[in-house]
Amino acid sequence: MFLSIDGGDGTGKSTQLELLAAWLRAQGHEVLTCRDPGSTPLGEAVRHLLLDRHDLSIHRRSEMLLYMAARTQMVEELIRPALQSGKSVISDRYLLANVVYQGHAGGLDPTMLWEVGGIATGGLTPDLTIVLDVPAEVAAARLTRPLDRMEQQGSEFHARVRQGFLTEAARSPDRIVVVDASGPVEEVQGNIRSVVKNWR
Amino acid sequence: MFLSIDGGDGTGKSTQLELLAAWLRAQGHEVLTCRDPGSTPLGEAVRHLLLDRHDLSIHRRSEMLLYMAARTQMVEELIRPALQSGKSVISDRYLLANVVYQGHAGGLDPTMLWEVGGIATGGLTPDLTIVLDVPAEVAAARLTRPLDRMEQQGSEFHARVRQGFLTEAARSPDRIVVVDASGPVEEVQGNIRSVVKNWR
Repeated sequence: MFLSIDGGDGTGKSTQLELLAAWLRAQGHEVLTCRDPGSTPLGEAVRHLLLDRHDLSIHRRSEMLLYMAARTQMVEELIRPALQSGKSVISDRYLLANVVYQGHAGGLDPTMLWEVGGIATGGLTPDLTIVLDVPAEVAAARLTRPLDRMEQQGSEFHARVRQGFLTEAARSPDRIVVVDASGPVEEVQGNIRSVVKNWR
Repeated sequence: MFLSIDGGDGTGKSTQLELLAAWLRAQGHEVLTCRDPGSTPLGEAVRHLLLDRHDLSIHRRSEMLLYMAARTQMVEELIRPALQSGKSVISDRYLLANVVYQGHAGGLDPTMLWEVGGIATGGLTPDLTIVLDVPAEVAAARLTRPLDRMEQQGSEFHARVRQGFLTEAARSPDRIVVVDASGPVEEVQGNIRSVVKNWR
């Protein structure tokens, strides 16, 4: 099973992913977790260019292609081999994030992004994507660590991000499920586990 | 006018490009020269990942997308502004190299590469591409400097590269012209100048 957890910044993705992985492992599943962009040496090098090199000018189509390049490497070096050996995979973000951030919020054509994404991933789509959703003010209050390039964008951008995730989920309810993430960590995790349990 | 010079490794591209730029400048043209991948801070960072980081595992689709990302940045940061301000541009390699190296020689679908390339470049195609062509043994003899990741590929790969350039030139004779580059530098430059003069 290939799962991804996605949503805006400050929705608690990383925490929820670790709890979900622990729960699946306790049930005897072998679970690989990864983060997109990243998780491979090439992916982490590209992630560094994308998120930490505030000195670099990066055109939005260039940014989109760098995310795609990192994802290809993660798919072929980690995810596909893990799935083939019978493991489950949970990715912290995946192609949907690219479609939403660079497409719905960033002004590129979401359809084009799905197409290039299909080429980049060799057609590998998560069986299920959990989109964590919180109101903008809750997300902003949660982001207390130093912010990366994406997180530093303004509140209007983040509102378009949220709307983009909701739009894509409404289009593909068979594989993208929105979970309200404004409650306490344990409550949100309970809701995620229900979705995963009922989905399988 | 947007020109690119392309061809296999060891065909003398960089030398010929500089001589061509000097000739155009002597006629009063303002000329911007660039190299693909590279020429922008992002592009050079990506070039370093692609060609010098021999420790990194890079999947061929990932490699293709990194070349595209570097090219997008070069187009939007340098080439398009230069053309808009009335300059001529000569690029050392461009999208055609990607189509040939990762497509014809590397096993990816050339049609897909042209498509992704169209997205990456926003449709900006050179008015004229000069492909420098030499027999394999001449090219190998010319490559005396330390070789990068692409240049280190075997002779069978380089034979597919040469054939790929010839195939693409045959398909698009209106915008891709092959010049025999096995003679002395001055003779090759003379032939290039004839092609450019007659093309304009």
